[in-house]
Amino acid sequence: MADTLRFDGQVAIVTGAGGGLGRAYALLLASRGAKVVVNDLGGKVDGSGADARAADKVVEEIKAAGGEATPNYDSVENGDKIVKTAMDTWGRVDIVINNAGILRDRSFLKMTDQDWDLVYKVHLLGTYRVSKAAWPIMRQQKYGRIVNVSSASGLYGNEGQGNYAAMKMGIAGLSATLAKEGVRYDVKVNTIAPIAGSRMTASVMPPDLVEALKPEYVAPVVAFLAHASVPESGGIFELGAGWVSRLRWQRSRGGFFQLASFSPEAVRDKFEEISDFDGHPTSYPTSNNDAFGEIMSNLEGQEAPPPPSSTASTPTSTSKESLMASAPLFETMAKALKNEGAALAKKINGNYRFVVDDGNWVLDLKGASPSLRIGDKDSPVDVTLRVSDADFVQIVTGKLNSQQAFMKGKLKIKGNMGMAMKLESILKLARTKAKL
Amino acid sequence: MADTLRFDGQVAIVTGAGGGLGRAYALLLASRGAKVVVNDLGGKVDGSGADARAADKVVEEIKAAGGEATPNYDSVENGDKIVKTAMDTWGRVDIVINNAGILRDRSFLKMTDQDWDLVYKVHLLGTYRVSKAAWPIMRQQKYGRIVNVSSASGLYGNEGQGNYAAMKMGIAGLSATLAKEGVRYDVKVNTIAPIAGSRMTASVMPPDLVEALKPEYVAPVVAFLAHASVPESGGIFELGAGWVSRLRWQRSRGGFFQLASFSPEAVRDKFEEISDFDGHPTSYPTSNNDAFGEIMSNLEGQEAPPPPSSTASTPTSTSKESLMASAPLFETMAKALKNEGAALAKKINGNYRFVVDDGNWVLDLKGASPSLRIGDKDSPVDVTLRVSDADFVQIVTGKLNSQQAFMKGKLKIKGNMGMAMKLESILKLARTKAKL
Repeated sequence: MADTLRFDGQVAIVTGAGGGLGRAYALLLASRGAKVVVNDLGGKVDGSGADARAADKVVEEIKAAGGEATPNYDSVENGDKIVKTAMDTWGRVDIVINNAGILRDRSFLKMTDQDWDLVYKVHLLGTYRVSKAAWPIMRQQKYGRIVNVSSASGLYGNEGQGNYAAMKMGIAGLSATLAKEGVRYDVKVNTIAPIAGSRMTASVMPPDLVEALKPEYVAPVVAFLAHASVPESGGIFELGAGWVSRLRWQRSRGGFFQLASFSPEAVRDKFEEISDFDGHPTSYPTSNNDAFGEIMSNLEGQEAPPPPSSTASTPTSTSKESLMASAPLFETMAKALKNEGAALAKKINGNYRFVVDDGNWVLDLKGASPSLRIGDKDSPVDVTLRVSDADFVQIVTGKLNSQQAFMKGKLKIKGNMGMAMKLESILKLARTKAKL
Repeated sequence: MADTLRFDGQVAIVTGAGGGLGRAYALLLASRGAKVVVNDLGGKVDGSGADARAADKVVEEIKAAGGEATPNYDSVENGDKIVKTAMDTWGRVDIVINNAGILRDRSFLKMTDQDWDLVYKVHLLGTYRVSKAAWPIMRQQKYGRIVNVSSASGLYGNEGQGNYAAMKMGIAGLSATLAKEGVRYDVKVNTIAPIAGSRMTASVMPPDLVEALKPEYVAPVVAFLAHASVPESGGIFELGAGWVSRLRWQRSRGGFFQLASFSPEAVRDKFEEISDFDGHPTSYPTSNNDAFGEIMSNLEGQEAPPPPSSTASTPTSTSKESLMASAPLFETMAKALKNEGAALAKKINGNYRFVVDDGNWVLDLKGASPSLRIGDKDSPVDVTLRVSDADFVQIVTGKLNSQQAFMKGKLKIKGNMGMAMKLESILKLARTKAKL
């Protein structure tokens, strides 16, 4: 254990800090030097009522211990007012802990629209509103830490909590997005699913357990996630009683179908394979682009192999191509492939036309030895790629990801999509061999 | 491939069925015999406008192919009206596909409350409202299939889609809960995260890809999930272009902390261990009870071993205990432990008092050989368990899960919580050996 984690000079907002977990977070952050906005409407667990004493008491506790705190009594629906309290009092916001919550547990059959709406407003809308009001400040100052509160009930579903589960899972989806949007501004957003005894769990846990699972056994994790030194953003942590785990999505390899015979019956017949997490390698996706490898490989598997390009034209070096920034890169690629890429070429067994601005190159990876044909704009190829000279340099040198370039329309692809997806492995070889 | 999957006599509601994926689902279900409510407000991708022709055209397509369909033009916010169309026209609802969606992509900085609200209303509130209106019907008829639509953007987060990601992930949380609540009524709820070319993805995908990723390459999966023969509920499937995978949460073993020294610094120092998915066995939780093993084992690790019970009283068989239904089960347990449980007893090294109604048994697993003391209500023990005679029979015979009994307050526990959690392994041994 090295140096102590402090929050001196920082301002933290903790919503629902009048009791339970929120209070524990507020006390811990304040004891480490943070100035804390202790927000609590002082309502009941079901969202009714209001009482300023909840927040006031915690502010007094913090002050009695020598810390700095100020109360705020607004509903989290008015996130802007809570953030305004921080700005008016101390002129900044560094930390937001979106902790406020209510419960309106009810079977889906008996759930009322009010049960749904109230839980929506406090959990998901409230988390949105407070984060939204703090976001421009954090972005502007290029620093911020947000800890959002999900729940195992949302992550796994839980009987009688359709409203709560939806909102708690929704918060995880918002967090994952904010983590990605905040990365450029050192705004880190993590999510916890805490298990603790509080008035919110008193109705479902035996008293012994409520007593044993103290909020103080969750707070140190929240404090670390709120600290400048936290190494991650976008994490989900399930924790309680001094145990702290992490969650991620695991994806089965899945089933690959021939589209010509794709049908509900085909899905039924392969359903076990689709659901198989043990027999095949699984993956851990973190972005919606992560599926494109599988999708492209399935599209590729659909096509009969294209006819061999028997009409290869003679290479001709024209001034048009040779003047372009991409020209030496093609030479490098061709050289790398010639020396080391025979196995790769054999595996790929296809040819690519690159139309870079108005220059044409064909990278021929069919047959025994790979070759490059400069200026070839006519011979049949499996894939045609169109890209600007500048973007191609970025792609080959690894500064622009080819898949992202494709998604953004900077790289246009025609022909065999699956073969196009193999471009990255060609580029990688070229980069490694040429030390680009 | 065995018999064809049909939907004859069934009524399906497909929201947002005027185009794209919804249309593909509606056409496929109708071609397999389902009567389909083709719901579409006919609005634009951003949620503005309305046009009855969207739904009408698909209804015409279905009818032209010899199928049955009726249009509905309501917003999914008015889920009751959509369900009413099904009931008024055909008198039942078997399938709901919550497909309707809009986009209001915007960076979190620039997102307006309207961007948030509209996406909330169509995706999460709409899915809730349509499902809620269909739920009592499905429950009543003890049959139903709901397919909800999430998105990789929600599951993994996606820049510029904070609103959409929150709602799509929220839908997954609602689905997980409905799957659990529906299990008794043969109402199955599954979730898809489809990748397809449509007007919703046309702005982020190149035209080639929009064309290649046809909605028809997703629809067979939805049809199977909507069919009576689908074996699962609560699944999440990521799919597109004829590739179909499944997702689940993977949880790291995590870090276990001494509570006396639990602090933000301790979390920092163990953060790698918390986030480690490779060095330790991971788990795949599916319920919020799944964390209790870890939590209890961490609480257990906190305590100094209790003092040995040197004052064991002499076993006395009283009529009170012997008259109870649990009596023979204790004898069986004791016998099983004596014959085969020495290693287990050595590992547990503790003693349990069972207070069953007003009878007392002490199961002593301290020292060389396990013993049972009937009527012992005084000697010190590590754990005291209180339970009714009837519930104890249920627990020992495996009809009532001891952890659930505990969570529901049917089984009360005092003393060393961690040791109490080992009860299940004792019961399991007793069950196996005694063939209960």
